[in-house]
Amino acid sequence: MPALRVTVWNEGVHESTQPAIAAVYPTGIHGAIAEGLTELLGPDASIRTATLADPEHGLSEEVLAQTDVLLWWGHIAHDQVADEVVERVRQHVLAGMGLIVLHSGHFSKIFIRMLGTTCSLAWRNPEGGERELVWNVNPTHPIAEGIEQPIVIEAQEMYGEFFDIPTPDDLVFISSFTGGEVFRSGVTFTRGRGKIFYFSPGDQEYPVYFHPQVRRVLANGVRWAAPVAGPRRAPEVSNPDAGVWPR
Amino acid sequence: MPALRVTVWNEGVHESTQPAIAAVYPTGIHGAIAEGLTELLGPDASIRTATLADPEHGLSEEVLAQTDVLLWWGHIAHDQVADEVVERVRQHVLAGMGLIVLHSGHFSKIFIRMLGTTCSLAWRNPEGGERELVWNVNPTHPIAEGIEQPIVIEAQEMYGEFFDIPTPDDLVFISSFTGGEVFRSGVTFTRGRGKIFYFSPGDQEYPVYFHPQVRRVLANGVRWAAPVAGPRRAPEVSNPDAGVWPR
Amino acid sequence: MPALRVTVWNEGVHESTQPAIAAVYPTGIHGAIAEGLTELLGPDASIRTATLADPEHGLSEEVLAQTDVLLWWGHIAHDQVADEVVERVRQHVLAGMGLIVLHSGHFSKIFIRMLGTTCSLAWRNPEGGERELVWNVNPTHPIAEGIEQPIVIEAQEMYGEFFDIPTPDDLVFISSFTGGEVFRSGVTFTRGRGKIFYFSPGDQEYPVYFHPQVRRVLANGVRWAAPVAGPRRAPEVSNPDAGVWPR
Amino acid sequence: MPALRVTVWNEGVHESTQPAIAAVYPTGIHGAIAEGLTELLGPDASIRTATLADPEHGLSEEVLAQTDVLLWWGHIAHDQVADEVVERVRQHVLAGMGLIVLHSGHFSKIFIRMLGTTCSLAWRNPEGGERELVWNVNPTHPIAEGIEQPIVIEAQEMYGEFFDIPTPDDLVFISSFTGGEVFRSGVTFTRGRGKIFYFSPGDQEYPVYFHPQVRRVLANGVRWAAPVAGPRRAPEVSNPDAGVWPR
Repeated sequence: MPALRVTVWNEGVHESTQPAIAAVYPTGIHGAIAEGLTELLGPDASIRTATLADPEHGLSEEVLAQTDVLLWWGHIAHDQVADEVVERVRQHVLAGMGLIVLHSGHFSKIFIRMLGTTCSLAWRNPEGGERELVWNVNPTHPIAEGIEQPIVIEAQEMYGEFFDIPTPDDLVFISSFTGGEVFRSGVTFTRGRGKIFYFSPGDQEYPVYFHPQVRRVLANGVRWAAPVAGPRRAPEVSNPDAGVWPR
Repeated sequence: MPALRVTVWNEGVHESTQPAIAAVYPTGIHGAIAEGLTELLGPDASIRTATLADPEHGLSEEVLAQTDVLLWWGHIAHDQVADEVVERVRQHVLAGMGLIVLHSGHFSKIFIRMLGTTCSLAWRNPEGGERELVWNVNPTHPIAEGIEQPIVIEAQEMYGEFFDIPTPDDLVFISSFTGGEVFRSGVTFTRGRGKIFYFSPGDQEYPVYFHPQVRRVLANGVRWAAPVAGPRRAPEVSNPDAGVWPR
Repeated sequence: MPALRVTVWNEGVHESTQPAIAAVYPTGIHGAIAEGLTELLGPDASIRTATLADPEHGLSEEVLAQTDVLLWWGHIAHDQVADEVVERVRQHVLAGMGLIVLHSGHFSKIFIRMLGTTCSLAWRNPEGGERELVWNVNPTHPIAEGIEQPIVIEAQEMYGEFFDIPTPDDLVFISSFTGGEVFRSGVTFTRGRGKIFYFSPGDQEYPVYFHPQVRRVLANGVRWAAPVAGPRRAPEVSNPDAGVWPR
Repeated sequence: MPALRVTVWNEGVHESTQPAIAAVYPTGIHGAIAEGLTELLGPDASIRTATLADPEHGLSEEVLAQTDVLLWWGHIAHDQVADEVVERVRQHVLAGMGLIVLHSGHFSKIFIRMLGTTCSLAWRNPEGGERELVWNVNPTHPIAEGIEQPIVIEAQEMYGEFFDIPTPDDLVFISSFTGGEVFRSGVTFTRGRGKIFYFSPGDQEYPVYFHPQVRRVLANGVRWAAPVAGPRRAPEVSNPDAGVWPR
């Protein structure tokens, strides 16, 4: 049985409605991400994908119960994600499932629900994109292992500060763009027993998820976000039997 | 015009249905808190109160727009708070209104909504309560100004770890109880432009909100949570005109 | 008596040995900084200056005892600062004196002594400098009050990551440079009862300390770093009489 | 070759001069700690010990170069540790060696040097000690894996707040004592590429290092503090060749 069970979730709307984007991601954004994870995580991991159009968006209780780390890519259909699925994902994160939120997923229901803020940011997407440099400011962080300084992404949408998130537990990457903006592009949070990693590089118009260094960050992120301590537990609940140690 | 506009919100159910609790708090928990703030903040502050039974729970758009800091006490009626009022409060916090959540308010909709976690904890309430010692672990924090080491509260309900909250921005107080449990009893968070302070001492059965040191913590908390920078702004929204500086 | 007693310390070597730099800072870097603080802090503050060449570097016990916030600029003469003066400054910071370390002061003895790390960074100083954009990532922080997004500094030396400092308490500013590098350019720390602010913009070759927004950051920083709670105390010492509350 | 090379350093003065303490720790405090690590880390780890009386205190450049994690116990002879050995240890920590500082090691030169503060605390040691309860406030932290809630230590010296340390990266454990004091008893820091864990339980008078749960925390701590990313690097130095990526 693989040690690490990964589900890559993608809205999947751009690829099925916009030929130019389908040309960039022929197997979907989820396909490109899954391919990279399969290559880098090897036989110890099992990678499945799920999309908005699947029944229950492919995120049934059964699927989530068998998922150690969930990756989330969404953009133009955040509102179409059912609230009960969002709450189901939240409960699994609180119980220990890792969650990796990507790029425009900053506005997903699940990200806003876990963090509490608006998760808004500044952005700009000129024709052809801008060069993004992703700088590592936390060299001993497991997510940065084996990553070049900086990662150079030739074409990307610009995401800039102010990024309205709570103070992250760890700040791993800061990006700059051609225009001179900066962005906290790799940040981590803990919510309950679950670890959350947000990583901004990756856009439907540019082949960022084929970039070897971006793929390595995602593979590192999956390993980091996996539950560390035994079987999944139910989220904490108030405990009237507190203090059972002898007194 | 007072510089500091404070609204003390209390569920107000215990006092109106349980004579023993009404005897502890004859003017309601909100009355006791408001009295302490009035005394310590003086003429620079205006203090109003609101309760669950008021129209819109006393938290209309107009009231919130004129509130710099909102205090929140609730316990047995969290579910009766309307979701639209919770969302309204959240929007004001994100825009800069301070929020102070008290004791059993850890399970309020607004607290869980801002933090994302279950906010559960261990607890025990033996006959007569337990002695709570509130230790300051952050002596230069404005909320701890003028506070004794420790605050001694003769009778309190026990709240213990694990307290399922995100890593706080600042850890100000840690409590111990007769039984030997510990609790992070004074913690701060920032969400958007709003500052949040959670302070656990204070229960409907014990006269904790008459304790001079508890009152001082609350007054310090109000000053700390007040918006620091000019007029209230709308919460951040995504900005397509990012980067208007000359380039 | 002014409420806020500020001492601006400058090594003062460049200005006295290099005419080109004396032309940029005719009254010294300390003079330019003191001028800005005087203008923005007004009569509530008293500003004095001190330099390496002064007896005890101008930082006698008497001067430090009368200093609420010390600003520190040094570059080519870090090694000439006497160890006993460094330790004296450290004791005052631990007791509550604010410390603002500027630009190349990242390699000062006092900064390394307070933080424990190498405090190294990447740098480059091409002819004419590079444009630095200083982005605010913490909009409600008192140090950012009234600051434009971004601060535009036309010519600066480049400072880049990795900046080897401990995780800061607060990350306030991130800079980008013409070359695409990023730098955590405004960070805070607490050590004992003292607050520390490091701000990187400011170099001997460029008139950065005349920039109105840089001056405002420094004035905000002085207000933020000032001791908040009453008279200066001696640094903490081990306390064999712990727990004097009644038990 | 063992994957994990551990050096347990102990001052070793109590055991050689006080028969009552030698009776508690017949093979020295270092012996008891090494025994626990050997048992729990198994053949993947090699454990050596070193003491103050050894040449260079047993911490030569060669020994440190072959140490992944160094544990440090000291109490009455902090001043006898040579400054050059302290600086040598510091350089190795900054380069990536893990450091675990134990109990009264809070006043060791190396701990104060890495943290910058006084590292003072409140304490009391009545005849027979006090019961210490060690509560886990960070259940997903690797150092807390497999640890009971709480750890019950029947007899210990009391360590209490205020503990004058910088804000830790992670707060893992909080202790309470019979007298009602609390203490941040398990805290982590990063300095350069090195991870630091401070754990307060453990005193020369009480057999704490034979406690199975304390031993497990130390074994977890060693695994956590080990360098994660490849060979040890020299500490960061200022880099005039910054920005070698193509531009």
